[in-house]
Amino acid sequence: MRTMRKAVLGLLLALASAGCAQDGQRLVSLIVTNGTVVTMDDDRRVIADGAVAINGGEIVGVGTADEVARQFRAADTIRADGQVIAPGLINTHTHAPMVLYRGLADDLALMDWLQKYIFPAEAKTVSPEFVRAGTRLAALEMIRSGTTTFADMYYFEEEIAKETKAAGLRAVLGQTVIQFPVADAKTPQEALNRAGAFIEAYKGDALITPAVAPHAMYTLDASTLTAARDLARRHGVPTLIHLAETRDETKVAQERSSVSPVAYLDSLGFLGEGVLAAHGVWVSDSDIAILKSRGVGVSHNPESNMKLASGTAPVLAYLAAGVPVGLGTDGAASNNDLDMFEAMRVASLLHKLQSGDPRAISAETALEMGTIGGARALGMASQIGSLSVGKRADVILVDMTSARQTPMYNPISHLVYTTHGDDVRTTIVQGRVLMRDRRVLSLDEEAVLREARQWAEKVRTAVN
Amino acid sequence: MRTMRKAVLGLLLALASAGCAQDGQRLVSLIVTNGTVVTMDDDRRVIADGAVAINGGEIVGVGTADEVARQFRAADTIRADGQVIAPGLINTHTHAPMVLYRGLADDLALMDWLQKYIFPAEAKTVSPEFVRAGTRLAALEMIRSGTTTFADMYYFEEEIAKETKAAGLRAVLGQTVIQFPVADAKTPQEALNRAGAFIEAYKGDALITPAVAPHAMYTLDASTLTAARDLARRHGVPTLIHLAETRDETKVAQERSSVSPVAYLDSLGFLGEGVLAAHGVWVSDSDIAILKSRGVGVSHNPESNMKLASGTAPVLAYLAAGVPVGLGTDGAASNNDLDMFEAMRVASLLHKLQSGDPRAISAETALEMGTIGGARALGMASQIGSLSVGKRADVILVDMTSARQTPMYNPISHLVYTTHGDDVRTTIVQGRVLMRDRRVLSLDEEAVLREARQWAEKVRTAVN
Repeated sequence: MRTMRKAVLGLLLALASAGCAQDGQRLVSLIVTNGTVVTMDDDRRVIADGAVAINGGEIVGVGTADEVARQFRAADTIRADGQVIAPGLINTHTHAPMVLYRGLADDLALMDWLQKYIFPAEAKTVSPEFVRAGTRLAALEMIRSGTTTFADMYYFEEEIAKETKAAGLRAVLGQTVIQFPVADAKTPQEALNRAGAFIEAYKGDALITPAVAPHAMYTLDASTLTAARDLARRHGVPTLIHLAETRDETKVAQERSSVSPVAYLDSLGFLGEGVLAAHGVWVSDSDIAILKSRGVGVSHNPESNMKLASGTAPVLAYLAAGVPVGLGTDGAASNNDLDMFEAMRVASLLHKLQSGDPRAISAETALEMGTIGGARALGMASQIGSLSVGKRADVILVDMTSARQTPMYNPISHLVYTTHGDDVRTTIVQGRVLMRDRRVLSLDEEAVLREARQWAEKVRTAVN
Repeated sequence: MRTMRKAVLGLLLALASAGCAQDGQRLVSLIVTNGTVVTMDDDRRVIADGAVAINGGEIVGVGTADEVARQFRAADTIRADGQVIAPGLINTHTHAPMVLYRGLADDLALMDWLQKYIFPAEAKTVSPEFVRAGTRLAALEMIRSGTTTFADMYYFEEEIAKETKAAGLRAVLGQTVIQFPVADAKTPQEALNRAGAFIEAYKGDALITPAVAPHAMYTLDASTLTAARDLARRHGVPTLIHLAETRDETKVAQERSSVSPVAYLDSLGFLGEGVLAAHGVWVSDSDIAILKSRGVGVSHNPESNMKLASGTAPVLAYLAAGVPVGLGTDGAASNNDLDMFEAMRVASLLHKLQSGDPRAISAETALEMGTIGGARALGMASQIGSLSVGKRADVILVDMTSARQTPMYNPISHLVYTTHGDDVRTTIVQGRVLMRDRRVLSLDEEAVLREARQWAEKVRTAVN
């Protein structure tokens, strides 16, 4: 009798399910539902009790929970009650493995910091193994704090690429080219060769966009700058460069060619589509006009610029001119973390203060810079940066029920002004769930932390 | 046989225990042990694998875990492996119940924000019930983020006092005196009477320091300012006032008496020991000299000053002059949270940037302002602000094992540059454990959050 009842029930369920499919429901891999969807799409739609349908690596539906339930059924469903469903955050400037130097030295004059701590530490510790351990730690921190794409400039980027792919994150990885000998290249030519090989190895990868990262105009001569840029152009990959970060850089440019760092690079024919300039602090109105006319994107890194006392980038002027602006944390040696929520918050606070206008950089504008603005700056706006059908499924679920976030009148205000990275509960990249309800699935968290602490012992020895 | 064995075992245990006591071990109520103790005492001792012994409301021992174990045994022990044991943070300026307006309106010109949102919301919602619900929510957030003492300026402070005591927090509560009619007083005289009654009711309380809070020089006439200050002097309680927050305030002072806000208050004989000035942004060197000579403390509120575009307080000049400086979050309507770790971090970043010197406001100085500096500004440095024998047992345990905080080279750097309020695991005030391993013991968290959401519905209606 019991068996009979079970069989009938099974048949009914199968019929019901088939019935649904006949009603036009499409079977997809994952639905996130019953959260407040902050799309950051062109209409800036915010959907109460909304849902996002994902199939494979792609977003296939965005709407109210009811609408999505009518159109799709899914192999897996994640409920987002009390949570905001948002596009993954995009960190447009970091040096991921430097998390292993986090807090190694603070509150120093720039040259003391670099010459007494960072350079000696790098000279003695940077290696493929170090870079891999550092990338795993950075990936863990980024997954835990809702960053789904990052732009990186460091050494041994092929190792960073392996670990980034394994962790499941999306990244634009720039192989560093610099004039003096570094851990992965004795000469700029060797660095260029490495960059070329790296590009060949990762071209067309679903998660990794290989790039060339000429370090800065003050650490490279004109011919190497040009060669690096030519390499990137030849392969159609991005170019990442530090630009106009400090006042000292403007002095170098003045001495070399009597112009600003931006005008100097422009005189070399360096600037153009695909260039992402990190910092962009010391720029004039005519520099901004050059960056705009050449289609250069800017990474604004407010916490790093404040902590190192570099200056305040003219972000309002960039935005007014139509220069795409993303946000970056910079490396954890100078910030000291990779929390993009904090980057959005500090960007908003900083420019209100400096402009004297509390309306400057609203929460929405800050969130824009942390998502679709970053995508534009990286030339990836057709793939990421908003919850839009057809884009890659890079999605985060952010808890909004803590005391710190209660009550909630406006989810966008909360994302910028009260949310911490730790409020992210679930992180999805390319449709793969990397963290679910705070449990990281793509990395062995304990092993990553243990290994990082072991590397810290070596770093300590290196600077003592 | 079994019973026999049990009896013998019991006897042996009793003997062993008595033996310990005979070795000079003192029985105390609580020991926190096996953490890194950041004392913030006069010697700024940092003790690896340290412990703090607490008896009743008082700190009775601070040292290595071994030293403390030799001297004390405890009814209760909290292990702090992987955690920092630090003095509770001191928020020197907030309006606790305004958490219920958190994120209600942002990114507006000051007058629009006040007149279209905050004032209408206050007119329709502020009541004893509102203030109680708001205080419970604020207390929950503060306990969860490691704030153990706060200075408050709002209405119905006697209600705030009841809820603060119940939640177990320490506070300096200033009953607002303002020229125009407000929720709890139709006239300044009524407000003064309320303040007098409030002081009588709470004088000598172990947790609550009653205070008078004349709102600001621009919202009060000379005679009310003087009357409020006289009331505080008569009772020997603190005076909390907004001072030199905006450029507009300097205009009011100029019009009224051709001097600065600070000089105006000084001309009334207002300034002196026991006065805490919130903001102190628009001050000249001679204003700073006045504040120093009168023994006035300053609450620096970096996030509020940035978000409202008020300006940058000259904190380096205050510290150089020897003015005691604490840190405040301001009310959550303008910040939008009560996280003092963020206040410390932003204070450090802001003054590095504005001074152009990355050495300015080191992590240690920021932590100082968040602890012992705040205690000094409130005139409570003999009781709180450091882990020192004889002081009140206001202690927090902060987890340092997350990816964001790994590795840790320097606990003070981490407390300021990478820690979030949510990293606090355990909060102890006056020896009472208010939160243990993230479980809040002194409040019904779910009820507090539910009630706050209900109030938010009323607030929404009020401003629509």
